[in-house]
Amino acid sequence: MPRTGRRPGAGGTREKILAAARAQFARKGYEAATIRGIAAAARVDPKLVLHYFDSKEGIFRAALDFPFDPAEAIPELLKPGLEGLGVRLARFFLELWDSPAGARAHALIRSVVGSDDAAALMRDFATREILARLAQALELDHPQVRASLAASQLVGIAMLRYVVKVEPLASARADRLARWIGPALQRYFTDPSAIGSR
Amino acid sequence: MPRTGRRPGAGGTREKILAAARAQFARKGYEAATIRGIAAAARVDPKLVLHYFDSKEGIFRAALDFPFDPAEAIPELLKPGLEGLGVRLARFFLELWDSPAGARAHALIRSVVGSDDAAALMRDFATREILARLAQALELDHPQVRASLAASQLVGIAMLRYVVKVEPLASARADRLARWIGPALQRYFTDPSAIGSR
Repeated sequence: MPRTGRRPGAGGTREKILAAARAQFARKGYEAATIRGIAAAARVDPKLVLHYFDSKEGIFRAALDFPFDPAEAIPELLKPGLEGLGVRLARFFLELWDSPAGARAHALIRSVVGSDDAAALMRDFATREILARLAQALELDHPQVRASLAASQLVGIAMLRYVVKVEPLASARADRLARWIGPALQRYFTDPSAIGSR
Repeated sequence: MPRTGRRPGAGGTREKILAAARAQFARKGYEAATIRGIAAAARVDPKLVLHYFDSKEGIFRAALDFPFDPAEAIPELLKPGLEGLGVRLARFFLELWDSPAGARAHALIRSVVGSDDAAALMRDFATREILARLAQALELDHPQVRASLAASQLVGIAMLRYVVKVEPLASARADRLARWIGPALQRYFTDPSAIGSR
């Protein structure tokens, strides 16, 4: 049982709930999993689950330990409009990885690559909370393709810069890197010819 | 000790040499590691190392279990010239992942993400065997930046399509996906304005 900062009893319960939640979300997906089912698997009262995590969404994010809240960040990035979105998104992503939250992002990649259950959680979360929000804001055909291609460029940068640490990407200044990949993201988002229909 | 297809004695020795090689390459890097040092760490005769792996490069590739030989594949991809390189490279990469060798590519990502030693091996190998070959063929400034940005787009596609399995990337036809990302790679390779000098 991993140690937490809380007093042992409470920490143990919280971790027990999180472990049950990870198993349920991975097996059933987000929609079919329930607070009641998670509580039963963890052998605690459903009220205790809500006490710790507020909502199903809250327990899902805690189970994944996702390093930022897309419900807040994505609308913020979209607010100035589609123009310049690529560079803004790239900068946001690199600043996140370069911040203390980068360690959580790194841990997340580790668990997603190491476990099919974690990959299922991540797929569900990314599709619903990130890609759907981005796709909805795009004004061209194939918005899901566009959003996921942009995401793939960002994930690839994370892999080479922070995980494999390939030069010159590993040592490049974040703002420079954002100017290199920003236009590539922008092309996916707003260039009609970037995604042909056949 | 993992099982291999060889007779137990030989398999054991080969695996022992590979384990020693992984440790040496990760700790010292490719240049400083030696056949002699690897043999000593594995407590075998250096001649036996050469018997199994032919050369230092051979043992390095075996240690990494890299799914293709860049010394052969990259010149082949470059042969028709820089025009169309992006789509050719994307197609090659996706066909590799969609083939039986994709399982080895997946295993490689797993070990690189899960182990700093494996990441060091991969960084060394990718820089020397893949990125240097691509960069050398490019005719614009910042060739290493261009090559590694293109590589990041490919790695990101592998992560979303094959590891996290995000839709619509996971189910997209390979040739369609190659036409979506090929021009993004091409832009990094041959668009002068893609990489600003400041």
